Amino acid sequence: MSLAEATPSPALKGQARGRGRVTGAVTFLPPRAAASGLAEMLLLRPIVRGPWVLQRTPRLVAVAWGSHPQACAAWTPSRTHGTCSPGDGSWRWKVTAMGALLGLGAGLAYGDHRRRAAEAEPKAEAVSGAPYPVFTRQEVGQHRSLAERVWVTYGGEVFDITDFVELHPGGKSKILLAAGGALEPFWAMYAMHSQEHVLEILQAYKVGELSPEEQSQPSQGDPYSGDPPRHPALKVNSLKPFNAEPPAELLTENYLTPNQLFFKRNHLPVPAVDPASYRLQLEGPGGRVLALSLPELKRRFPKHEVTVTLQCAGNRRSEMSRVRQVKGLEWGVAAISTACWGGVRLRDVLAHAGYGEEEEAEEQHVCFEGLDKDLSGVAYGASIPYRTAMGREADVLLAYEMNGEELPRDHGYPLRVVVPGVVGARSVKWLGRVSVSREESPSHWQRNDYKGFSPAVDWDTVDFTTAPAIQELPVQSAITEPTPGAAVPPGELTVKGYAWSGGGRGVVRVDVSLDGGRTWRVAELMGEEQRPGRSWAWRLWQLTAPVPPDAAELNIVCKAVDASYNVQPDTVEPIWNLRGVLSNAWHRVRVTVAED
Amino acid sequence: MSLAEATPSPALKGQARGRGRVTGAVTFLPPRAAASGLAEMLLLRPIVRGPWVLQRTPRLVAVAWGSHPQACAAWTPSRTHGTCSPGDGSWRWKVTAMGALLGLGAGLAYGDHRRRAAEAEPKAEAVSGAPYPVFTRQEVGQHRSLAERVWVTYGGEVFDITDFVELHPGGKSKILLAAGGALEPFWAMYAMHSQEHVLEILQAYKVGELSPEEQSQPSQGDPYSGDPPRHPALKVNSLKPFNAEPPAELLTENYLTPNQLFFKRNHLPVPAVDPASYRLQLEGPGGRVLALSLPELKRRFPKHEVTVTLQCAGNRRSEMSRVRQVKGLEWGVAAISTACWGGVRLRDVLAHAGYGEEEEAEEQHVCFEGLDKDLSGVAYGASIPYRTAMGREADVLLAYEMNGEELPRDHGYPLRVVVPGVVGARSVKWLGRVSVSREESPSHWQRNDYKGFSPAVDWDTVDFTTAPAIQELPVQSAITEPTPGAAVPPGELTVKGYAWSGGGRGVVRVDVSLDGGRTWRVAELMGEEQRPGRSWAWRLWQLTAPVPPDAAELNIVCKAVDASYNVQPDTVEPIWNLRGVLSNAWHRVRVTVAED
Repeated sequence: MSLAEATPSPALKGQARGRGRVTGAVTFLPPRAAASGLAEMLLLRPIVRGPWVLQRTPRLVAVAWGSHPQACAAWTPSRTHGTCSPGDGSWRWKVTAMGALLGLGAGLAYGDHRRRAAEAEPKAEAVSGAPYPVFTRQEVGQHRSLAERVWVTYGGEVFDITDFVELHPGGKSKILLAAGGALEPFWAMYAMHSQEHVLEILQAYKVGELSPEEQSQPSQGDPYSGDPPRHPALKVNSLKPFNAEPPAELLTENYLTPNQLFFKRNHLPVPAVDPASYRLQLEGPGGRVLALSLPELKRRFPKHEVTVTLQCAGNRRSEMSRVRQVKGLEWGVAAISTACWGGVRLRDVLAHAGYGEEEEAEEQHVCFEGLDKDLSGVAYGASIPYRTAMGREADVLLAYEMNGEELPRDHGYPLRVVVPGVVGARSVKWLGRVSVSREESPSHWQRNDYKGFSPAVDWDTVDFTTAPAIQELPVQSAITEPTPGAAVPPGELTVKGYAWSGGGRGVVRVDVSLDGGRTWRVAELMGEEQRPGRSWAWRLWQLTAPVPPDAAELNIVCKAVDASYNVQPDTVEPIWNLRGVLSNAWHRVRVTVAED
Repeated sequence: MSLAEATPSPALKGQARGRGRVTGAVTFLPPRAAASGLAEMLLLRPIVRGPWVLQRTPRLVAVAWGSHPQACAAWTPSRTHGTCSPGDGSWRWKVTAMGALLGLGAGLAYGDHRRRAAEAEPKAEAVSGAPYPVFTRQEVGQHRSLAERVWVTYGGEVFDITDFVELHPGGKSKILLAAGGALEPFWAMYAMHSQEHVLEILQAYKVGELSPEEQSQPSQGDPYSGDPPRHPALKVNSLKPFNAEPPAELLTENYLTPNQLFFKRNHLPVPAVDPASYRLQLEGPGGRVLALSLPELKRRFPKHEVTVTLQCAGNRRSEMSRVRQVKGLEWGVAAISTACWGGVRLRDVLAHAGYGEEEEAEEQHVCFEGLDKDLSGVAYGASIPYRTAMGREADVLLAYEMNGEELPRDHGYPLRVVVPGVVGARSVKWLGRVSVSREESPSHWQRNDYKGFSPAVDWDTVDFTTAPAIQELPVQSAITEPTPGAAVPPGELTVKGYAWSGGGRGVVRVDVSLDGGRTWRVAELMGEEQRPGRSWAWRLWQLTAPVPPDAAELNIVCKAVDASYNVQPDTVEPIWNLRGVLSNAWHRVRVTVAED
């Protein structure tokens, strides 16, 4: 590959110029890496920074890792490799010649590549075939900060990843956790790193090798080795952490989803909780913390059972990705399930701790912390508005049963939150602590994720403080039968699916079209009809209709209407957002009609 | 016009056959009548029956007055003029040859026109130039039922409208109120009858004349003569009853709409209420009725002020009519306004009457009756769910002030209900009575109007019991500047509008496109930000954006997102419904760009 190919073209610059003020870096990745959503793989915990493909060549894809201006404040300008100001001077482009270092033979495109070459002396040696210098773990351990340079080991190799720290899609703070030590335990936790392309990127930063006697390291173990077994029918989107959905065809076989098939959405390894020593930490108004055992919870508060549908914010994300790539797990239509949850009411527990229904508490938040923690000890967390937690009709549970069984480990054993009508992300599993605060949970997942943005917002312009954390979800429906591409017999066709809406707004109607939305029929709603304003569970629906005799193909569409007469938008494009959440456009399934 | 023209063609029959089981009547009207929405004019109180245009010829439009099968139960088959069973025998067509009787010279198309000719002897005389028979008012008064034939007078003429009773778009019960007497007082109440085409229809049923000494009748007076004066800027959709909206450009000039410009939606004449003798009738749990004077209300209960946007269910109906004609007033985008309402809380008043927050009351309804009554003494009425009325955060008011002034007569003087987040139809004006019931209000407007249906449902298939009464409205937004067809200067364009959602769900974002929805920008939200879950008032918004230098035309679009991340649907067609309510698709305004 020639240098010319790796040099951003004027077209590229023009494209970037059109996007407003951008501070970012252009990186060159092999097309395979970009196509497979490398950035995506690097991130299960998404971030305020990310890639957008600027230009595609047969062998090389230029990806700009954009940063929001606010997030850039901590950048170390001394480490930028080049600055290009196309015109107005408000543009900074940090260009790393990763293409060159990925064994593609491309030269450095922009900036002071000579300085870099001098600094990265060992690489020059490697290219010339000379051996790498050898370091001890202690020497590696001295490089733990940007000032000291950031070194890590992987296997027997040593890498200076200082220049990658700001480019890390998972964020600077996360990658710095590994500074001075081995990558393995972190990659074991975030298994999306185990990709050939990630290793290729890493290789570009190699500066040495570990001394042979230090290469063997006591195994860190697999943090996911304690995860429970799962049902083989599940379609796995991510193994570590475990994220999976049931096949669409199975989803609507039951009004209550069997526990084993209920979609799994874990952010971290499943914690092993000893029920005997388990205590729920409950922070009272004065800061006093009550510790409640499971038997105490069950004894002290009345048991309530509520049938609630939980839906992941990313349900149907894959449809958004088809418009433009988004960050997140590629969920189909089945990141949604329904169970009858048994437990105690959160409002009873909060009242026990001393909280009342005072007006002034109205704008506070009830914060939840899970017992699932990342390697830095940070627990999964989320919060809901105080008025939801205390609402007489909000039915928020601390659940210990799911469909009449003890809560399964994947679903939060021994105790979890269930917030009806609200995005699944707030129903914190393996509940460790409950507190009340004037602020929302400080958790990444509350503040910098699970929010909706305009299709105009990209990773360069996004400001997570400008959008509210998703709580209630909008009206949703999807077709589960037939499945896309199926060949349906002529004559009569039965279409099946689910419909649901947030906030306890029941589904009042589902319209189905066999001709892409030109004509509609009203589907039959099935399943429990719950109370007005407290319709927490989905309705399953079906429609049996004649297949038009001359149709070779059907474009089946469904759309639901909720009790507030909110409807689903017609198309995905206008609700596209960079995190691929809130994907609730009409669901469309194309099938062929089999010959008679 | 030839007989052939008036005969339903095979195409017509085929079209009808495609609509499922239909029981109805084909009527021929002059195109002017159909185009001007004759049926519409006949009805301010809409109905379960109505017209759909079957076939259009240059001079004649065939309109089928369809009836829902349930509504047909009371039909008198002996009076049908013809039956045609095209094929499967499940079709009944009642054909009245109104075309013939409208002076168009058309013959009777289907059915036993000979029998009809014999029965309507006087018409034959009229045609031959012979005088009509003369009747006294007493004789007319003997024809008050279908069994006795239904006669009415208008001016000095006598009409046998028996055959029209079932065709009356306003419903059989309403037209029968006039049986045996004069039409004038009724038409004075429902002024949409004062149309040339209505008189033409009536003329077809003439059977005689009043004796000259009886032709002068003491004037019934105009029931609307007591209506208050209105602001000349209002765009009047209906004068009697008065329905009007402000010009869009004025609507968003103020966050609080000036009282005089606040849209007016009256169903009946404005009652004249004497504040001194006014008593609110409040029915307590045991049926005991409390009568509360205005001073008592003000003294006994704390005053609350809430800024609330009210919107008519039919706001933006005219956009639906452009898809297919719907029944209802042709509102533009301004059947929505915002005021700061002052009054007492409904929950305080209900608590005073003895109602509590009991769970068992959850599925009851609080019914309101206005002091505005139709000629049969039936008051305008509506109800809301008990949990809305009693909700601590629902902020339902009995208001006596509007923007700091005494409630204007058009807005319910001296006392009205204001139900925040809910369709305007439930905010009953001139409040006379409040009661609690296990049933919704029996009012026509609660049970047989203000409901949403699938676009697949027409007046032949509609069943009002299958849809819930509209309470909370879906997310809405519209562009108020520029106005459609405007020529905007090149350079920069400022687009303005409003956005609102029901249920206290605040608006979190408005996206605006200048290119029909291809690309979007985020508008700036203005006006008060209210409390989460209690965001009852609209947000005004604006966007200033460069006009693309090469654009000759702009297709401006807006769409809003509410706190539950519900969005507006892209297009009108798929949410079209026969009553033209809930019209909340993206608002689109096309403008031209003026030459530089």
